[in-house]
Amino acid sequence: MFKELVKKNRSYRKFYGDYIIDSQILLDLIELARITPSAANRQPLKYILSNSEDRNAKIFETLAWAGYLKDWQGPEVGERPTAYIVVLGDTAISKDFNVDPGIVMQTILLGAVEKGLGGCIFASIKRSLLADNLDIPERYQILNVVALGKPNENIVIDDIKDGDVKYWRDENSTHHVPKRTGDELILK
Amino acid sequence: MFKELVKKNRSYRKFYGDYIIDSQILLDLIELARITPSAANRQPLKYILSNSEDRNAKIFETLAWAGYLKDWQGPEVGERPTAYIVVLGDTAISKDFNVDPGIVMQTILLGAVEKGLGGCIFASIKRSLLADNLDIPERYQILNVVALGKPNENIVIDDIKDGDVKYWRDENSTHHVPKRTGDELILK
Repeated sequence: MFKELVKKNRSYRKFYGDYIIDSQILLDLIELARITPSAANRQPLKYILSNSEDRNAKIFETLAWAGYLKDWQGPEVGERPTAYIVVLGDTAISKDFNVDPGIVMQTILLGAVEKGLGGCIFASIKRSLLADNLDIPERYQILNVVALGKPNENIVIDDIKDGDVKYWRDENSTHHVPKRTGDELILK
Repeated sequence: MFKELVKKNRSYRKFYGDYIIDSQILLDLIELARITPSAANRQPLKYILSNSEDRNAKIFETLAWAGYLKDWQGPEVGERPTAYIVVLGDTAISKDFNVDPGIVMQTILLGAVEKGLGGCIFASIKRSLLADNLDIPERYQILNVVALGKPNENIVIDDIKDGDVKYWRDENSTHHVPKRTGDELILK
């Protein structure tokens, strides 16, 4: 059922660091992205795939992890993502990427969850470093990075309390994500 | 299988105009939206739901339909959407809505497709008219509208030819959407 997939698709930040993600899996996820709706059908998004140790390391060092967890600098060696999809905007096609990146990345993540994987979307990226590390031509704007792996983390959704949206980890390392209730989301 | 859902989720613009979409269906779709990832978990999106003839008409008149189909002004009476979700950004929470709208709308549409429905995302909206028609307080920025209904249209995906992204309708009213091939999407 689709709702189960949506529920299981949490923002995972700890993975089984030795779990290899086959290139074909990444190609399958791009195939899902390819057939999503696109503003005016322009399809201006392009992708860089990574599942090698070397390239993964070049991406990992450019990402800012979990802003609300002040005493956690990101996953240790052994629990890092084992694949990435870098989402680029091709400025030769459009300067405005609209809602396409969100559409595509949610679709990629849901597809990953169906395959027993999971991931996390990054917007906080050292973009010049990433462009250097991967030799990304200037024509491409770095929009986001999707980190992927076999999740090794327990995440639960809680109802929000006192409007505090900050996620947190309890003493058992369960990651808690406070979500607004439906009532708060709908204007009458 | 998730890929079937993604494939079936086309941008539908013609519907069975007498097909009633229950309020509970819209609430179920918002529940899906509620549990999606959100940038820094801020969850700044709010929603207006519509499935009444009166409110639907107030939304319909604000939407620009199918830019590439120059001789088609949008669905006739009898084939219009029977529900809408207006997606708002609550500026009291954030001024920047990031990739949240795309994430949420794709999730809503995939959920709709699973229920035998379908829809279309609008970004080209007469926003002041819509704000007037629905008495939307200034605090809320109108981001997008998702039109929903029981699709009454055949849509196929074609491989792109000569880089022409314009969708078109053939003599049998089948709607063709040219998509870039996977090879074009992936940077080596």
